Amino acid sequence: MAAKKRTARKTAGKQTAKKKTARTTARKTPARKAGGKRARRRRVALAGKRSKATKKIDDLTLELIHDQAREVHQDILKLRKPDLEFPVRSLANVSYSEKRGYFEIGKQKKQRTLTVNTVRNFAQTLRMMGLSKDLVEANDFATKRDAYYQSKNWEEAKFDDQTESDTVMDDIEAMFSLSGVAREQLRFVPDEGYNGAVAGRLVVLDPDRDTGRIERIDCTRFGSGAYSIPSSVEALGFETNAKFILAIETGGVFQRLQSHKFWQSRNCILVNMAGVPSRACRRFIRKLSDDRKLPVYAFVDCDPYGISNIYRTLKVGSGNAAHLSQFFCVPKARYLGVTPQDIVDYQLPTHPLQPVDVKRAKDALKNDPFFKVHKPWRRAIEQLLEMGVRAEQQSLAMWGLNYVIEEYLPAKLRNTGAFLP
Amino acid sequence: MAAKKRTARKTAGKQTAKKKTARTTARKTPARKAGGKRARRRRVALAGKRSKATKKIDDLTLELIHDQAREVHQDILKLRKPDLEFPVRSLANVSYSEKRGYFEIGKQKKQRTLTVNTVRNFAQTLRMMGLSKDLVEANDFATKRDAYYQSKNWEEAKFDDQTESDTVMDDIEAMFSLSGVAREQLRFVPDEGYNGAVAGRLVVLDPDRDTGRIERIDCTRFGSGAYSIPSSVEALGFETNAKFILAIETGGVFQRLQSHKFWQSRNCILVNMAGVPSRACRRFIRKLSDDRKLPVYAFVDCDPYGISNIYRTLKVGSGNAAHLSQFFCVPKARYLGVTPQDIVDYQLPTHPLQPVDVKRAKDALKNDPFFKVHKPWRRAIEQLLEMGVRAEQQSLAMWGLNYVIEEYLPAKLRNTGAFLP
Repeated sequence: MAAKKRTARKTAGKQTAKKKTARTTARKTPARKAGGKRARRRRVALAGKRSKATKKIDDLTLELIHDQAREVHQDILKLRKPDLEFPVRSLANVSYSEKRGYFEIGKQKKQRTLTVNTVRNFAQTLRMMGLSKDLVEANDFATKRDAYYQSKNWEEAKFDDQTESDTVMDDIEAMFSLSGVAREQLRFVPDEGYNGAVAGRLVVLDPDRDTGRIERIDCTRFGSGAYSIPSSVEALGFETNAKFILAIETGGVFQRLQSHKFWQSRNCILVNMAGVPSRACRRFIRKLSDDRKLPVYAFVDCDPYGISNIYRTLKVGSGNAAHLSQFFCVPKARYLGVTPQDIVDYQLPTHPLQPVDVKRAKDALKNDPFFKVHKPWRRAIEQLLEMGVRAEQQSLAMWGLNYVIEEYLPAKLRNTGAFLP
Repeated sequence: MAAKKRTARKTAGKQTAKKKTARTTARKTPARKAGGKRARRRRVALAGKRSKATKKIDDLTLELIHDQAREVHQDILKLRKPDLEFPVRSLANVSYSEKRGYFEIGKQKKQRTLTVNTVRNFAQTLRMMGLSKDLVEANDFATKRDAYYQSKNWEEAKFDDQTESDTVMDDIEAMFSLSGVAREQLRFVPDEGYNGAVAGRLVVLDPDRDTGRIERIDCTRFGSGAYSIPSSVEALGFETNAKFILAIETGGVFQRLQSHKFWQSRNCILVNMAGVPSRACRRFIRKLSDDRKLPVYAFVDCDPYGISNIYRTLKVGSGNAAHLSQFFCVPKARYLGVTPQDIVDYQLPTHPLQPVDVKRAKDALKNDPFFKVHKPWRRAIEQLLEMGVRAEQQSLAMWGLNYVIEEYLPAKLRNTGAFLP
């Protein structure tokens, strides 16, 4: 401990004693150390072995960051005020494209020009881009919180709280999203504790970050457990002969389907979203369904939260992060159930809708571009409001704990054409 | 759908048309169907193949349920009022045993005698025990919510809301806990969406519920992903040469340690608790550390929540579920960090303690039997209150994203004797 104490103090001293420009310090941050050495030795080479696809996107990301930095640098050399341009991230700059199937960010832009007033924020933005560059080179990642704490060593450019650093990160993401680069490709990953679990007819191919050797993860071989999705799924590949992906709201139903090997009898892949799916979970489902051309069926509670928060977020993204929808939403997703009509057909036990449920449902009908273009959804939500009740997916347990496996899901899967859009 | 509709209605009709005693209906609930047939055919035989250890505890559980039912039955035959006896579940009936290392339930009992006023609750208790018996026989499980919905078919004995059914379940658990049987052995599992993730030098042995064949799950082979712990871990076995278990609060730190294979360089097992550990997560760590005689080190945020909610719950259990502590707490756990002294030694960036933090810390010092008996803890909490700040485990990222792997954890692990108790 004593030795450690001294080292920590020494390092701290080193970091705070010297005043450097933001640019210079960027080269000395400890984060840089691991990958930095290798990068210096081989210049263009990237740390670790990467697949061709990963290398391609990493090269693109680095090129985009370099281009931005070069522009700023040249402006300065020519004694012009440098500026950075970001898409406006607000609902007013979002549209729903029925053809593409997700919320899209519009054409409005905001500029950040280097002035006396903006110098701190401008420097922070460049440092954050520099961190991303370091991470790509080192084949590493940082959570949003990691990035915030990393900045504590950026002297005047440090963030006072995480909302500040999150905003700068969002701006950078939005900027690069216009070139088709997602947050995870910038090597920023969410702070979420849990990213969802998977079981079933799927082999995940995960390249080792040092050796590049592919780990084959067979999701039929987890007994009663499951595969826990990592924070970043960009490098993953997939092998599967499954017929569909079943995205499930609750851990209870997932555990039942997994324990009774529903994926075996129905040749499918089960995903436990555990409520509103995390970004990693949505990106995983999206990549898997795109790569392997698999339909995605959502199985959630029949209430305005299950429909308009969980399902809608999975399918078309969320309004205030529209710059991410192209990467994270799952336009292929369709709604298996529980539908308002199921409450009638299966005589499910219900709970009365609370005022917050009614408000959420009415909001969806009135303001949500997704529900506005889909008539079957408007009818379903109106039916729910008329009945004045909601039903959970586990309410099927009234007819037997395994009724969901033996009766409900088979009946539903006989008529996938009837699923809500 | 049309065919399904008819079946659902028919079943519903069957269930509600006939009036039967609670006892008779128990035999006809759909839950019973799957395991029931086999049980009737072979009497004592249980569905599926089970390990010797599982069979032993299942036989004990069934015997205890039968004994209780027999007593009630004989009282009725002798025209005596039957009664059931439960331990009182309240803080007043809890003590902290330093020797055993967990909160223990005391000797106070409450009786539930069958009278006109208690008939519904009495019937519900017997039905819930009957459900447990069915589940053990069928080698199946029910979440708390499953059990609630299952009761919707118990006619007059149905529960009006889940708090009612949870209370009855808790009473039954407390009753059987006196004979060493845990909730998971009664086949009741929590509703939690997420049970924690594992990576590292561990092979989990999970017997297939139908064939008994052991699935070997190698937790070094998950790439950047991890093993997701199932709701019930009772049947699991373990193979490992690891030196310790590192229980981690945040997904961010877990992902970093997993991606950089900290478990390989330090020969250990990583567990992501994702906040306050779920019951399945605690039971998993407990079983693993008991079976393989492994020390458990907790790595959480340095704040009153991390110390008194996350760590204390992991180590000694929680006051209002003391009847479970003997199964779920991890008395072997020790506190690696982040300690209040680490904030000083590592010059960590901090946040001010909020009033809720101060209240929690003072409560711990004044009322919590665990902290009261451990002087080093009292000193540490007092130090935190004096400094008036808290620090997150990710704040180590200030010194470099991988400082936690390269410096902090190695320094800590050189002196495990200094860990807080």
